[in-house]
Amino acid sequence: MGWGDLGAFGEPSKETPNLDQMAAEGMLFLDFYTANPLCSPSRAALLTGRLPVRNGFYTTNGHARNAYTPQDIVGGIQDSELLLPELLKKAGYTNKIIGKWHLGHRPQFHPLRHGFHEWFGSPNCHFGPYDNRERPNIPVYRDWEMVGRYYEDFKIDLKTGEANLTQLYLQEALDFISKQQASQQPFFLYWAIDATHAPVYASKQFLGTSQRGLYGDAVREIDDSIGKILKHLQQLGISENTFVFFTSDNGAALISAPEQGGSNGPFLCGKQTTFEGGMREPAIAWWPGHIPAGGVSHQLGSVMDLFSTSLSLANLQPPSDRQIDGIDLLPAILQGKLIDRPIFYYRGNELMAVRAGLYKAHYWTWSNSWEEHSKGIDFCPGQSVDGVTTHTQEEHTVLPLLFHLGRDPGEKYPLSRECSKAGLATQLSMCTPGKDGTPVLPVRNTSGPWSASRGWSSSTRLPWCQASPS
Amino acid sequence: MGWGDLGAFGEPSKETPNLDQMAAEGMLFLDFYTANPLCSPSRAALLTGRLPVRNGFYTTNGHARNAYTPQDIVGGIQDSELLLPELLKKAGYTNKIIGKWHLGHRPQFHPLRHGFHEWFGSPNCHFGPYDNRERPNIPVYRDWEMVGRYYEDFKIDLKTGEANLTQLYLQEALDFISKQQASQQPFFLYWAIDATHAPVYASKQFLGTSQRGLYGDAVREIDDSIGKILKHLQQLGISENTFVFFTSDNGAALISAPEQGGSNGPFLCGKQTTFEGGMREPAIAWWPGHIPAGGVSHQLGSVMDLFSTSLSLANLQPPSDRQIDGIDLLPAILQGKLIDRPIFYYRGNELMAVRAGLYKAHYWTWSNSWEEHSKGIDFCPGQSVDGVTTHTQEEHTVLPLLFHLGRDPGEKYPLSRECSKAGLATQLSMCTPGKDGTPVLPVRNTSGPWSASRGWSSSTRLPWCQASPS
Repeated sequence: MGWGDLGAFGEPSKETPNLDQMAAEGMLFLDFYTANPLCSPSRAALLTGRLPVRNGFYTTNGHARNAYTPQDIVGGIQDSELLLPELLKKAGYTNKIIGKWHLGHRPQFHPLRHGFHEWFGSPNCHFGPYDNRERPNIPVYRDWEMVGRYYEDFKIDLKTGEANLTQLYLQEALDFISKQQASQQPFFLYWAIDATHAPVYASKQFLGTSQRGLYGDAVREIDDSIGKILKHLQQLGISENTFVFFTSDNGAALISAPEQGGSNGPFLCGKQTTFEGGMREPAIAWWPGHIPAGGVSHQLGSVMDLFSTSLSLANLQPPSDRQIDGIDLLPAILQGKLIDRPIFYYRGNELMAVRAGLYKAHYWTWSNSWEEHSKGIDFCPGQSVDGVTTHTQEEHTVLPLLFHLGRDPGEKYPLSRECSKAGLATQLSMCTPGKDGTPVLPVRNTSGPWSASRGWSSSTRLPWCQASPS
Repeated sequence: MGWGDLGAFGEPSKETPNLDQMAAEGMLFLDFYTANPLCSPSRAALLTGRLPVRNGFYTTNGHARNAYTPQDIVGGIQDSELLLPELLKKAGYTNKIIGKWHLGHRPQFHPLRHGFHEWFGSPNCHFGPYDNRERPNIPVYRDWEMVGRYYEDFKIDLKTGEANLTQLYLQEALDFISKQQASQQPFFLYWAIDATHAPVYASKQFLGTSQRGLYGDAVREIDDSIGKILKHLQQLGISENTFVFFTSDNGAALISAPEQGGSNGPFLCGKQTTFEGGMREPAIAWWPGHIPAGGVSHQLGSVMDLFSTSLSLANLQPPSDRQIDGIDLLPAILQGKLIDRPIFYYRGNELMAVRAGLYKAHYWTWSNSWEEHSKGIDFCPGQSVDGVTTHTQEEHTVLPLLFHLGRDPGEKYPLSRECSKAGLATQLSMCTPGKDGTPVLPVRNTSGPWSASRGWSSSTRLPWCQASPS
């Protein structure tokens, strides 16, 4: 799902009344990011609070290649990683994952071996049908037991797009919440639905109800389900004790558009890329009685923060024996504070870009290869920015390609070009990656654009430029 | 100003709290259009309720050339046209225009000769400074009298972007409303501010306050002013007797982006073009006690409808001696009805496209000429859709280029191509322009896509395609 898929984020059909209502009752995050523009590493980051280059969800067998766990891979989440449910378990939480796991399908990677008490869903995407011995259809689990397979026991009609999976996942969520409320046990529910992932699906009652086609039908069903979950919490009287966060694991997959792909609003490109369309996500926090209704936050946030924030809510400390990249967002959510932190945009093992304040520096630009592109695989359909949406991997580590996301959220106007138009030199002293490839925090330089993003004066219209030395 | 410039329409900085609040208290129109992607013809259409090809604001000296009234033109609004204030005057309304008129600057075109009782503003854009005898600076009027000139008596600092014009216009509006309330006289106020038109300006107190740069400062000042006007109506106790509508005369001018141009959200191209970015506008209706709060409408609307709707509010009939293209939107606004009507996209004298339901047919495609483009003038920066954003005028009157704006609001996927990918033929029977160039209403064909846009079944994923005859 993309940033632009919700009515509250400007989707022109405005078909998400429940998510929009969730935002009206809670807090909208406009600058919230995933940790990788692809599903597996993003989900690993969410559950570990760590960048994929730390938690293992990256590859070294292709530069800037995003890693994920297809059906035929043997890897998955390592035992050495500490997942959010493992930590919450110690504090007495019951943890359930509903839907897509995607952190490995071998026995040692099973969610119930990594802190979850319950699972209903699949280790993988609902690709298929395969229907052959070599490559069987993707299994669906209830806890330890495989209860069937997609396309066989859990139907997905690729012709009509009909599948009742979201309804199954919804019922699982409602039942789990009821059970926990009845037993007065705290819970963590990871509701990882995947109806907007190609092949996109929706239940019969939602098919044909959206102006947007099948993809919109899927969004409407998810929206409707979220409305039911929130209402359920309210009816059970536990909404003021339950923190709910909605977000997505990567930007809309424009390669599947328009029938199977969503919208990244005004942003550049989509899934798989480190442009804003690939990594900026819709995000809403909801906690009646605690989060002021109708709040809007420009806090730079990351899915990894959900790890630290959840621990904070449970009065737990994050592990001290390893680097945690997520931060506790509660001061931003409850007290409206703006926490100073950067956003790192990785593609596989490569730090492609960094955002600091309103500035974003690209160290590498790439959409996809000419080879892929010539086959009609397009990560940026209808969009083309010279020297930015490149089809070769372009290195800018010496002179990063700098953008101001406030003035130019669509990443169309590299500041060097704008400065050059104005006859000025670009001022570049923001942040550089370390020599060993690990990210280095942007340096707060009082004369550079990093501080300028906060304090630039109205008389300087182009704070990122300076007069060329004569 | 563009569709994507308001927080309520998904602008990522979300800096328009007053307009967003206006929408929360009123009704948001998501499918509202101007009558031409340029200022003069659009404003003529608003005040006459008629398409520019009827009210004279078009040219025949260049195909698909948008007409406007620069300083050195002698034309303007004809006496034979009946303007909204002329009609409202007869019903006892006092009419004032504040800001940019743009319907001609010769004496016979003066707003006070066309129904307005009062004027504070300028006949033209605030281009300049010219400061020479041949081409003097643009004058500013109070009623019949010229009270000064831009850059001389009404300062605009092109270096800093500072000008206090919006504050002057705001005070004029508040004073006029106070006066009318005090005398218990009905009024029509046309508040035609122009701070977001290049050269963009803002008052000192707003300079540097936006994440978006100077353009955002201007938007913030307009937003703040609108908040003050609405609050004034409430404080005077006349908000329930006052219908307020906010919209723009054309899409954001991307040629001026990023420093001087706004955002058209997820739409294609901008000002001057007949793609959605050029003509779909932000639009909000506000009338406490009458319009249900938080309403959202998908009614296809036009600036010309403000003519008919205003007359309807004043219990007046539109003129019967001429074709009026606007419709009365009150049933859509007050009763939530969806009125069946098309949208015509003109560029100068040429009908470029028609929208019917969710379908849009392009009869001509054009962004701008190669000659202009080679000089760096780009109506679609960062956007390029093969065969759509053409730099030569491409005719499609025999087989229109058809889009489904629900599935593809960005006009990136012509249906013929999508059908061709699916191995199907395109079904085209929507609407064609008349032989004399006047628009013809789309034919309601029960087997064609026009009706299909309403009744297509969920089992047909591509309703605009049909199996090729074998």
